Amino acid sequence: MEKKPKFAVIGGGSWATAIAKMLCENQDEIAWYMRSTYAIEHLKHQKHNPNYLSSVAFDTNKLKLTNDINEAVAYADYVIFVVPSAFLSKELESLTESLKGKIIFSAIKGIVPESSLIVGEHFHTKYDIPFENIGVITGPCHAEEVAMERLSYLTIACSDRKKAKYVAKNLSSHYIKAKTSDDIIGTEYAAVLKNIYAIAAGIAHGLGYGDNFQAVLMSNGIREMKKFIRKVHKMKRNINNSAYLGDLLVTGYSVFSRNRMFGNMIGKGYTVKSAQMEMSMVAEGYYAVKSAYKLNKEYGADTPIIDAVYEILYENKDAKTVFKALTEKLN
Amino acid sequence: MEKKPKFAVIGGGSWATAIAKMLCENQDEIAWYMRSTYAIEHLKHQKHNPNYLSSVAFDTNKLKLTNDINEAVAYADYVIFVVPSAFLSKELESLTESLKGKIIFSAIKGIVPESSLIVGEHFHTKYDIPFENIGVITGPCHAEEVAMERLSYLTIACSDRKKAKYVAKNLSSHYIKAKTSDDIIGTEYAAVLKNIYAIAAGIAHGLGYGDNFQAVLMSNGIREMKKFIRKVHKMKRNINNSAYLGDLLVTGYSVFSRNRMFGNMIGKGYTVKSAQMEMSMVAEGYYAVKSAYKLNKEYGADTPIIDAVYEILYENKDAKTVFKALTEKLN
Repeated sequence: MEKKPKFAVIGGGSWATAIAKMLCENQDEIAWYMRSTYAIEHLKHQKHNPNYLSSVAFDTNKLKLTNDINEAVAYADYVIFVVPSAFLSKELESLTESLKGKIIFSAIKGIVPESSLIVGEHFHTKYDIPFENIGVITGPCHAEEVAMERLSYLTIACSDRKKAKYVAKNLSSHYIKAKTSDDIIGTEYAAVLKNIYAIAAGIAHGLGYGDNFQAVLMSNGIREMKKFIRKVHKMKRNINNSAYLGDLLVTGYSVFSRNRMFGNMIGKGYTVKSAQMEMSMVAEGYYAVKSAYKLNKEYGADTPIIDAVYEILYENKDAKTVFKALTEKLN
Repeated sequence: MEKKPKFAVIGGGSWATAIAKMLCENQDEIAWYMRSTYAIEHLKHQKHNPNYLSSVAFDTNKLKLTNDINEAVAYADYVIFVVPSAFLSKELESLTESLKGKIIFSAIKGIVPESSLIVGEHFHTKYDIPFENIGVITGPCHAEEVAMERLSYLTIACSDRKKAKYVAKNLSSHYIKAKTSDDIIGTEYAAVLKNIYAIAAGIAHGLGYGDNFQAVLMSNGIREMKKFIRKVHKMKRNINNSAYLGDLLVTGYSVFSRNRMFGNMIGKGYTVKSAQMEMSMVAEGYYAVKSAYKLNKEYGADTPIIDAVYEILYENKDAKTVFKALTEKLN
């Protein structure tokens, strides 16, 4: 009998915890790496992650918990990375175990600041992972609703559909429906770009724009996203599928989104630094917009919203003035 | 010098009040018909509509208020209808003044129950108005935000672009941007169908589905709307423009939407009758779904969300069961 491929989850945050929960619905054992030994000890004894989704009770017999990333990677055939993109390089520094032959899935939704690449491209370029061994797990999905077992839909993208299907099957349950896609570039860029639009939505809210404008912003956002992604990787895709539009909406309309919250503070007049300090975390979209803006210098897609967010966050331009100009470009 | 074409607003509700306010930014005088003599007297003396958007102060010198629909129609070149679709036929019964030569704009967003037609088609069929004299005013636009002068975008559709432009110009101001379109059928159907999706969103919420599902529902909703409208009237349109997607989002994500509220009560277990009594008004989507469902018998578009709402509201099927089946059809 063929050995059933095994999973490792790399990361200890809320989305990592949600993915570990989903996998445990189907797997007898998974490896789960997290940095914090405190969290690991807590999980072992209290059966929940002390820091994130603490309502989720785990069957700890199923968890091979470790704070050594090499142990987790060595254990698994499928390695799912779920650390903030800003910390990915640092985590990977500790890696001595080879990734050769491993199937790498990213649930990160960000751009790696050091390489300015989306995670799939980062692994392909820096670790020589062939694209057929790279995949993406994308929403629309707030981790908090996974914790509550509220019905959620995932899209699992990999150019090798068999691998996408295997991951989809192992994430599915009575509260998760997972479909597959072969658009790893498009789904990952959508997941990255949506955070920029969520920042824009937050800025607009902070500046006092209302729901009517928010709807116009999202409607322009999805059209802009379509143009951008088409420039990066042209293929037949329906931008209104859940992995693109759905993911944009769940983030752009969420008052809990870190990116939206960050934008809101900027709109209310905080500086970038003070907003980041106040939040004691960095919104993924902050890095994403820098990379997307630079990348687009090359592609030349018409992206007034990305440009506006970039100008506010990186060129220190006045949010009110920039958004006033932006409103003239939307329709 | 050519006489400047004049406007009449037919209706006394919040959207009618918002449109009257917008027109007053540009016109020296408009006719405004409303049924309630009390509201008219109140407006004359207190300078605001007592029942809707009462924060909006009017310059009453600009208002030719009347409770005789014929007086308003006789006065104007452009007649803007803004009564609930369920009451349109009744209002029109009083009409003795000819509509010949008048330019009719609908801001109604509903289906006329008696004819099962959208408003533009109703005027065309029953009153012999040529299509080039028929137009549509559509959002995304909550009237409440117009009252607060929060930036909003309108789409003004008419197959005669000159007429669309004239209306757009007269609704525009520092808080309103109005663009034009020649898709009167598509924009009006979008405005009608979005109320069905708002009911669906409300039902889902009432049943306990969360934000992840809501994003999937909206993402499926816009794809379904595109298919439906294409069957009704095939032309080149970008369904992600503000008049379609934006309008869907502002309604589907609004907790103030009557349609969403109505759906929410159904999801929580109210019967249709008791929900309508509790709300003391009828959600437009209630009529819309009946007409859309019947119309689609002819067109055969794949519309699982419309079908689900219809089955719940008109076939007395259990909302929980119907939605459970619906979740299998979405992706």
